[in-house]
Amino acid sequence: MSVVVQNIARADRAVVDALGAAGVATVHEAQGRRGCLQAHMRPIYRGARIGGSAVTISAPPGDNWMVHVAIEQLQDGDVLVLAPTSPCDNGYFGDLLATSAMARGCRGLIIDAGVRDVADLEAMGFPVWARAISAQGTVKETLGSVNVPVVCAGQAIQPGDVICADDDGVVVVRRDEAEAVLAEAEKRLAAEEAKRRRLAAGELGLDIYDMRAKLAAKGLKYV
Amino acid sequence: MSVVVQNIARADRAVVDALGAAGVATVHEAQGRRGCLQAHMRPIYRGARIGGSAVTISAPPGDNWMVHVAIEQLQDGDVLVLAPTSPCDNGYFGDLLATSAMARGCRGLIIDAGVRDVADLEAMGFPVWARAISAQGTVKETLGSVNVPVVCAGQAIQPGDVICADDDGVVVVRRDEAEAVLAEAEKRLAAEEAKRRRLAAGELGLDIYDMRAKLAAKGLKYV
Amino acid sequence: MSVVVQNIARADRAVVDALGAAGVATVHEAQGRRGCLQAHMRPIYRGARIGGSAVTISAPPGDNWMVHVAIEQLQDGDVLVLAPTSPCDNGYFGDLLATSAMARGCRGLIIDAGVRDVADLEAMGFPVWARAISAQGTVKETLGSVNVPVVCAGQAIQPGDVICADDDGVVVVRRDEAEAVLAEAEKRLAAEEAKRRRLAAGELGLDIYDMRAKLAAKGLKYV
Amino acid sequence: MSVVVQNIARADRAVVDALGAAGVATVHEAQGRRGCLQAHMRPIYRGARIGGSAVTISAPPGDNWMVHVAIEQLQDGDVLVLAPTSPCDNGYFGDLLATSAMARGCRGLIIDAGVRDVADLEAMGFPVWARAISAQGTVKETLGSVNVPVVCAGQAIQPGDVICADDDGVVVVRRDEAEAVLAEAEKRLAAEEAKRRRLAAGELGLDIYDMRAKLAAKGLKYV
Amino acid sequence: MSVVVQNIARADRAVVDALGAAGVATVHEAQGRRGCLQAHMRPIYRGARIGGSAVTISAPPGDNWMVHVAIEQLQDGDVLVLAPTSPCDNGYFGDLLATSAMARGCRGLIIDAGVRDVADLEAMGFPVWARAISAQGTVKETLGSVNVPVVCAGQAIQPGDVICADDDGVVVVRRDEAEAVLAEAEKRLAAEEAKRRRLAAGELGLDIYDMRAKLAAKGLKYV
Amino acid sequence: MSVVVQNIARADRAVVDALGAAGVATVHEAQGRRGCLQAHMRPIYRGARIGGSAVTISAPPGDNWMVHVAIEQLQDGDVLVLAPTSPCDNGYFGDLLATSAMARGCRGLIIDAGVRDVADLEAMGFPVWARAISAQGTVKETLGSVNVPVVCAGQAIQPGDVICADDDGVVVVRRDEAEAVLAEAEKRLAAEEAKRRRLAAGELGLDIYDMRAKLAAKGLKYV
Repeated sequence: MSVVVQNIARADRAVVDALGAAGVATVHEAQGRRGCLQAHMRPIYRGARIGGSAVTISAPPGDNWMVHVAIEQLQDGDVLVLAPTSPCDNGYFGDLLATSAMARGCRGLIIDAGVRDVADLEAMGFPVWARAISAQGTVKETLGSVNVPVVCAGQAIQPGDVICADDDGVVVVRRDEAEAVLAEAEKRLAAEEAKRRRLAAGELGLDIYDMRAKLAAKGLKYV
Repeated sequence: MSVVVQNIARADRAVVDALGAAGVATVHEAQGRRGCLQAHMRPIYRGARIGGSAVTISAPPGDNWMVHVAIEQLQDGDVLVLAPTSPCDNGYFGDLLATSAMARGCRGLIIDAGVRDVADLEAMGFPVWARAISAQGTVKETLGSVNVPVVCAGQAIQPGDVICADDDGVVVVRRDEAEAVLAEAEKRLAAEEAKRRRLAAGELGLDIYDMRAKLAAKGLKYV
Repeated sequence: MSVVVQNIARADRAVVDALGAAGVATVHEAQGRRGCLQAHMRPIYRGARIGGSAVTISAPPGDNWMVHVAIEQLQDGDVLVLAPTSPCDNGYFGDLLATSAMARGCRGLIIDAGVRDVADLEAMGFPVWARAISAQGTVKETLGSVNVPVVCAGQAIQPGDVICADDDGVVVVRRDEAEAVLAEAEKRLAAEEAKRRRLAAGELGLDIYDMRAKLAAKGLKYV
Repeated sequence: MSVVVQNIARADRAVVDALGAAGVATVHEAQGRRGCLQAHMRPIYRGARIGGSAVTISAPPGDNWMVHVAIEQLQDGDVLVLAPTSPCDNGYFGDLLATSAMARGCRGLIIDAGVRDVADLEAMGFPVWARAISAQGTVKETLGSVNVPVVCAGQAIQPGDVICADDDGVVVVRRDEAEAVLAEAEKRLAAEEAKRRRLAAGELGLDIYDMRAKLAAKGLKYV
Repeated sequence: MSVVVQNIARADRAVVDALGAAGVATVHEAQGRRGCLQAHMRPIYRGARIGGSAVTISAPPGDNWMVHVAIEQLQDGDVLVLAPTSPCDNGYFGDLLATSAMARGCRGLIIDAGVRDVADLEAMGFPVWARAISAQGTVKETLGSVNVPVVCAGQAIQPGDVICADDDGVVVVRRDEAEAVLAEAEKRLAAEEAKRRRLAAGELGLDIYDMRAKLAAKGLKYV
Repeated sequence: MSVVVQNIARADRAVVDALGAAGVATVHEAQGRRGCLQAHMRPIYRGARIGGSAVTISAPPGDNWMVHVAIEQLQDGDVLVLAPTSPCDNGYFGDLLATSAMARGCRGLIIDAGVRDVADLEAMGFPVWARAISAQGTVKETLGSVNVPVVCAGQAIQPGDVICADDDGVVVVRRDEAEAVLAEAEKRLAAEEAKRRRLAAGELGLDIYDMRAKLAAKGLKYV
């Protein structure tokens, strides 16, 4: 039952990087308002913005053995994604594992559990989005799997899917949709700039988006 | 059922500003330990301190249409207050809406739901107190109301009530009590300064507040 | 039932200081992965790291009278530890109490409830680890006890036990185990430095910790 | 600040009774999908269905003194509604208070806090909708108020408003809207019976409510 | 983006029925301790035990339009599985929808949101496993999808997967693994009966499962 | 670090039984409103009321190995008390373990984690108070300890302490205070009966407990 899948497909690096740069809110809108991980996934420090390819970990509660196994599978540009098999807030990951992951080009960790050594991780510039910060350590007794499909914070994630994360949270893009989503995201970014100028000048969204007639038709009354 | 109330009364601007400057903890004490919104309402960045008049929004879960409607009702010095009609952590508000609200003099947003583009909002200096940070977007399909009484994070808020918010959270002051609460708050601030000096010098609260006899009378034993 | 224990034993100051400096994650591992308070105990600002001797407070919900009583019991190098007798997120503690506590050499507060005036506390350099930030004030009507055993955030704490707290959370060390735990912690810190260098150079934990055979024996399959 | 309002207006008893009988879901729909208390308010036993006039209590955390005061204000057909001034799950109410309340004609208790003696309450037939069941007792030290406006589980409630509660939860109806809401509720109940027969016979909501064209217009695709 | 998939494969009916009868705990163990939905999914009444084929619904927060669409897709022996696209506890489903679903042979509803009319549903014998019971109604404004892959309460579910639910909660079995999982489940049930007799007679698990040597080898000390 | 303490002292059986019969709310009041476990500890079925001596288990998250070890330590009249070393809602315990525990005279289980096979447990008459009901199974890989002090749901519990549990929750009584607490509990029960009659006859608590003067002195106003 416990496997390590060694060869996974990844999206084109340029696409991954550009999705990361586009930001979570934009990417999520660009793919039809899908893919956001639950809002309890918070960055351990502000200001990081990453894109990367998912190397997934399915781990038992309170056991981080599979993180060591997963690090060997990392390639430059990857992001670790850990989903415990039942709810757990233990600190699965700290500065030593981050040192090892960074040595292999890892860009960050998405973990629906806890992380520790957060002051060190911030100093190293290794970003983590987590459910909890907890010094509570884990054991290395029970197997899990690496690079299998997981559900992490409410989203199904396949190994090789694109992960974007920033101060707004985390979004996943299916590997085979990455290019199309990027194209759509870039359209949105271009369109937003024009709207921002108009709104800053005092125009109202009610007029820019032509909402007044629709609101009246639905029955909105001004009193 | 869906209405926009266009003319609301507001408290005197100087009173609103002074309440904001007094700080949430002081204002809440000054009105008899009432008015604090629940503690899950957290600022998206530290250091903001505002006072303003409430423009209220009652919105369905996952639908931010009424925010556009509300922005037209804003006057300089107002604060948006959004209460969803059932629990929701979606990101109702981001940098475009903030651009529009700031163009009308809005001082911030109090939202018992989610917000996004938080890095941009911090860069713009637009403060938000929210239940969640979430990139998950919303639709524009269902009406709500603007400037009706709402319950936001456990407090009943009327349009035009005074909202104070800082790192300690959010407090609401009834519009017709604003002046009296300010007077009381200023008394407290003056009194606190004297106490702070005595405490810093090593005097004990037990003595300053004359508590020893009362504690003994209640039965406290020193062993 | 309500008592103040005035003479409590404390661990050796040099040991307390060194445990604080070692950090929460290390100390917790050094004592066999025990003693971490629950993960909802978060610092009100980042970057503080303290060790101190616990002066404990058992307080009713919404009543901070005993904090005043406890401050008189503080000695230089102590940490206040407050456990409410039932769940409560009120702001029991603010800048005036912190001024008083600092005047007596107190290093910080651990409170499984709320705190307020957090901007002031950060400016003063008085660190707090708390369940909540809340401006909601408390009354002074009902007795509690000082320097009795408490359960705070899931850990039993005796007065005089050593408290360590940093960005990873809070850990308690029994007073009579403090010296032994420190010795173990120092061993770990020394060993970690060597591992960090090897991991940074690209060696894998799988090899450093000799895990491959054990993983295979448990049945891990590479595919 | 602490008051007991002794004369409150109540809705017509026949209207109150009929609203109770109509059930929470129906009443809430009949008044435009408003008025439901939050879903954490659960009955301590199944099968009770009540309507009554609210006698409200604003009480400090962990203090049930005002319940005794409120009981004197009860009239036959009333319902007690208790909102703590900050979150608390203590058991404010048990079989002795229920005995007293029943002696005055009270129909039940709505409490956004805890209750105890639940086996006795069920045996007595005194229904309670509560946030928690907890044996943790309370003190009688601090005043609150009776028959003032409160926010209970997310809804603003005035003394004399109509409270309906059943296995689906709790809903509040403004006193001066009670008659109109009842008329609407009775229309709905009549209409539902016809629909239930058609649905039981295998007709689809898609056809009964004529949804197919609207779904297609919005863009729904069958594949 | 919004689709209704009309032809889905289902597992063999006899296999589905037998998995339902085997019970959630047994089925989950039989497939390697996988597939349990999160523990907040609770039955609205005790004693139901079902197996069925999943007809999935992805629905916006606070909008139950797609439930009507999904009911048309039901076949005898199916179970509805509803996952909102963001957290929501509204009552999406009540006795009228249940009447319609039962007319088409539906065995129950799994919903990571709210349900209402629970007294009626129990009287009708229509079981529901839900996150919440709430009278709060929903709108019919925004499309979703039917018979697409969803994540419900932490588990990825495909249309046609087998759902088992009883008092212990809910488990999903992949359609193409259903037969193998059933075989394994039946082996477990047979083996359990023998163990139960030995345990009832006073034999210890320590001896039946031969644990004493392993415990000693791990270092367990008896004092 | 992992130990099994084999000889623990227990309170007198008659005292244990009588405390169980007195009920949780009464016992908790009788010992000065102390000892209640947190309110999330709920019975898996209604109507059980037990007293027993604690056999404690400290177990890792997701690992129930120590339950087997603990069962050997049970004596007639004992109650199992399991505290996981970090938060976990897995189903540690089901009908086979209950069969074994009952064979040794165990009266029930208190577990700050999950339990499963709840329909079977109810049929067997084996009561459990738990944080969660979950079919999610556990492994047997990591040691814990038996009959060591634990913190369970917010209360420090020593092996041999008296546990009382009923529909109101769970309370712990220190072994060496059991007799005194029972004496106090019996006084309360006797006194309550008299009060119940007076309240049922329509007398008010305000008068029976002589509260009117104290309320007036505190400043309560009737308007």
